[in-house]
Amino acid sequence: MKRIGVVLSGCGFKDGAEIREAVLALLALDRAGVEVVCAAPDIDQAKVVNHVTGQVVAEHRNVLVESARIARGRIRPLSDLSADDIDGLVLPGGFGAANNLSTFATEGSDAVVEASLRDLIVAVHRQRKPIGAICIAPAVVARVLGSHGVKVTIGMDGDTARAIEATGARHERCPVEGIVVDPENRVVSTPAYMYDAPLRAVAAGIELCVAEVLRMV
Amino acid sequence: MKRIGVVLSGCGFKDGAEIREAVLALLALDRAGVEVVCAAPDIDQAKVVNHVTGQVVAEHRNVLVESARIARGRIRPLSDLSADDIDGLVLPGGFGAANNLSTFATEGSDAVVEASLRDLIVAVHRQRKPIGAICIAPAVVARVLGSHGVKVTIGMDGDTARAIEATGARHERCPVEGIVVDPENRVVSTPAYMYDAPLRAVAAGIELCVAEVLRMV
Repeated sequence: MKRIGVVLSGCGFKDGAEIREAVLALLALDRAGVEVVCAAPDIDQAKVVNHVTGQVVAEHRNVLVESARIARGRIRPLSDLSADDIDGLVLPGGFGAANNLSTFATEGSDAVVEASLRDLIVAVHRQRKPIGAICIAPAVVARVLGSHGVKVTIGMDGDTARAIEATGARHERCPVEGIVVDPENRVVSTPAYMYDAPLRAVAAGIELCVAEVLRMV
Repeated sequence: MKRIGVVLSGCGFKDGAEIREAVLALLALDRAGVEVVCAAPDIDQAKVVNHVTGQVVAEHRNVLVESARIARGRIRPLSDLSADDIDGLVLPGGFGAANNLSTFATEGSDAVVEASLRDLIVAVHRQRKPIGAICIAPAVVARVLGSHGVKVTIGMDGDTARAIEATGARHERCPVEGIVVDPENRVVSTPAYMYDAPLRAVAAGIELCVAEVLRMV
């Protein structure tokens, strides 16, 4: 049975993983008969945001603990996940990818990627195992694999695309239902909620992304 | 365009709404071209549970604010949602239904149902609009509509089924991929994560449940 790692970054798109993207990725993987291994870094969230008001609130939450809400408690610290354990990797989006898994939201192409995730992406890439990246998560992959000229999409947001290209990566525009495939680096990306799109359109892109990742396994 | 209310109870199955059930219900509704109105009571959660350890933690979270993580901020206080606004109602599960939307987890057939939800269920039922209830949420519907002999399922958990029947409701066993339909009361239920089942099986039951609710609209 194939095993795919899913890296979560909290629970809620304004300060963590985009919940719907994560669930749709998990569903597509489960429907394909794949074993899923959820993981998240055991670190504090960069911030906590009230999802009604959009305001930052004076709370502290842990990325692993909040991610466990999506994973239904079946999750491990990301530092315990080795590229040897899995056949591929999927990264849902949400601001957690840009604020917790990396500093992309504030530092763009100079972003620091959380060390265990950076090491995992490097090892998975070196083992020629596929990586699926959803929404803003392709920016994290770009920061790690930019020197390999990895090709990704985050949809059509110009500023974000420019920051991605400043890492050395290539950016290609893509509609919400579509994917961009880099067959050499084995990276598949889909824009998802980088668009204000209906859930069914987001689901279509994620299903394509997961299917292409599994085709590469 | 049909409008369906979705009542959330937090964000995470151990102290709020079951995230996957909520997302899968939203996806099925969106794929059917239905307008979704998410709502949740503006009340404190009964408790906050660490989803890694399962332990209650000394934190306070608000049901509406946490539910907004699933709803991507597009949510209203449940007290603002009238039966006149919607063509039907869907209730995802999770312990939030049994601890925040009601006291079913601790008081069983004597449970108190949160007032705005109780009034909404009564009004929706009176208007002969359908209600879909997922996982443990059928217990809440049973508590409100037990005097009408409503028929529901929560799968095959004997203790919970007995508590449901003590409200006057009828309980019918059902596999995870199935639904139980009460055509007279226009209530549809599916057990979902009342089973420790694969996500694809949970999804199958929820898709059937939503399709039957929409057929009754």
